[in-house]
Amino acid sequence: MTETVVLKLGGSVITDKSGECAIDHARLHEVAEELAAHRETALVLVHGAGSCGHPEARRYHINDGLTGENIPGVYETHAAVSSLNTAVVDALRDTGVEAIGIHPLDLALAEDGRLVSFETRHIAEMTEHGIVPVLHGDVVMDRLRGSCIVSGDQLVTRLAVALASRRVGLATDVPGVLQNGLVVPRIDRSVAATLDVGGSGNTDVTGGMQGKIAELLALADAGIDSHIFHVSKIGRFLDGTGHGGTIIGRSMP
Amino acid sequence: MTETVVLKLGGSVITDKSGECAIDHARLHEVAEELAAHRETALVLVHGAGSCGHPEARRYHINDGLTGENIPGVYETHAAVSSLNTAVVDALRDTGVEAIGIHPLDLALAEDGRLVSFETRHIAEMTEHGIVPVLHGDVVMDRLRGSCIVSGDQLVTRLAVALASRRVGLATDVPGVLQNGLVVPRIDRSVAATLDVGGSGNTDVTGGMQGKIAELLALADAGIDSHIFHVSKIGRFLDGTGHGGTIIGRSMP
Repeated sequence: MTETVVLKLGGSVITDKSGECAIDHARLHEVAEELAAHRETALVLVHGAGSCGHPEARRYHINDGLTGENIPGVYETHAAVSSLNTAVVDALRDTGVEAIGIHPLDLALAEDGRLVSFETRHIAEMTEHGIVPVLHGDVVMDRLRGSCIVSGDQLVTRLAVALASRRVGLATDVPGVLQNGLVVPRIDRSVAATLDVGGSGNTDVTGGMQGKIAELLALADAGIDSHIFHVSKIGRFLDGTGHGGTIIGRSMP
Repeated sequence: MTETVVLKLGGSVITDKSGECAIDHARLHEVAEELAAHRETALVLVHGAGSCGHPEARRYHINDGLTGENIPGVYETHAAVSSLNTAVVDALRDTGVEAIGIHPLDLALAEDGRLVSFETRHIAEMTEHGIVPVLHGDVVMDRLRGSCIVSGDQLVTRLAVALASRRVGLATDVPGVLQNGLVVPRIDRSVAATLDVGGSGNTDVTGGMQGKIAELLALADAGIDSHIFHVSKIGRFLDGTGHGGTIIGRSMP
C-alpha cells in the first residue's frame, strides 16, 4: 500500500470569499494541472467552502443547531458547497485525474460539532484503485445540536489519522502562518501560545487560521506533522522539496 | 419518536428503462404531490437507477469488480444515478417537501456485493427534523471486488432494519408481484418457491423482481413485512388502506 497524501485546498484559494459562491475556475485549473502531473501519488483531497456555503451557513445559523425555522438551511448550505465540489471534481477530471466527490453530510454524524462517526475504509479503497476522493467542509447532522458545520480542517485531521497519512498539506492564499508579515517556519504548542494570527476577515464560520492551527496541533499530538503553504507550492510539497511555509508539529522534548 | 416509513420508487417507475437516463418528470411530479400531501409522515425515500446508471454499470461491468480499465465506470455510473437523484430531490422540494439527497457511494462499504458498513444514525436524525433523506441504488466500493452495485432493494431492507421501520413499501409500474397476470396477494418463503415471476426485461443489473423478492423475504425473516404495489397507490399505502398489491411476510407457523 502506497502512502496516502491528504491535501486541503483552502476555501479562499478556490473561491473569491468576498463574493457569493464565486468560484475561481482558473485557479482550479492550475491546481488540477499540478495534481495531474503527480498522478502516481495516492491522494485524498479536501476543500473548504469559501464563499460557497459559508454565507448560507451564517444566514441560517446552521452551526448553532436546528430549530423549526432554519431547517431549509441544511439543504441550502449543502447545495452551495456541493456545487463547488462539482467544480473541483470537474476540473480534476478534465486533466485526467480520476476524481470522485464525497459529501460529508452523506456519511458523517457529529456530536456538539465534532465527528463521532465517519467511515473512511471506502475512501482508502478508492485511493488503492487510483481514485482521488474529493471531500469538503459541510453541514452535517449533529446528535446534540441537530446540525453543525464540520470544517475542511477537521476532516483533514480525521482522514490523516484514519488513513495513517504521514504527508498532510494545506494550500492557502498566504505563504504560511504569518506573524508580523513573516512566515513562522514551525509551530508547536509552545510557539502557538505566543502567536497572534488573527481571525479570518471574511465569512468563515469555522474559526479561520486560529481554528486551523488548533486542529493541526491536535493532529501533531497524534504524531502527524502538517504543512501550511501557498497554493503555488503544491508541486513542491508533493515532491517533498521546500515549500517555504509553516510546519505544525509536536513540541520538541 | 414517530414511526419511519421506508418507501422505494422503482427505477422503471421514474425513468423510461428503454432509453438512456430518460427521466419521467411528470411521474416524479405526481409522486411528489402525493408525498407532500402526507408531509406529517416520517419518511425515508429510496429510488432505483432505471435507465440512469444501469446502462453504465453494465457497460463498465462495475458489478464484477474493478480492473485497471473500468475504473472510470465508478464515476460514470455514480454520476448518472446521481443526476436522477437530483431530479427526485428537486421534484420533492418543488412541492415543499424538505428532501435531501444521500449517495450510498459516499458512505457505504460492501463485501462481495453486500453492505458491511452503512451508517444510518444521521439519516434517523434527519427524519426527526422533518427532512426526507432520498437514497438510491448506487455503485459502492467493495473490499473484495473493488466495486459492486448495491440495489435500491438492498438499501430498503438495510434501512428498514436499522430504523426499526414497520411500514416498508415498494412502488412499481405493476400492481404487485404477478403470476399468470394476477397479483399474488401474499408471499412467504413457501409461496416464493412455487413462483415463476421471471426477470426484468430491460437493463437491470440487480436481479429484477426475483432479486427484489429475495431481499424482501430476508427482511420478512427479520420480522418486517413489506408491500409491493402500483405507484398510483402510494397515497393508499401511506394511509394504511388497501393498495391491491403484494405483501411479503414471514411464513405462517
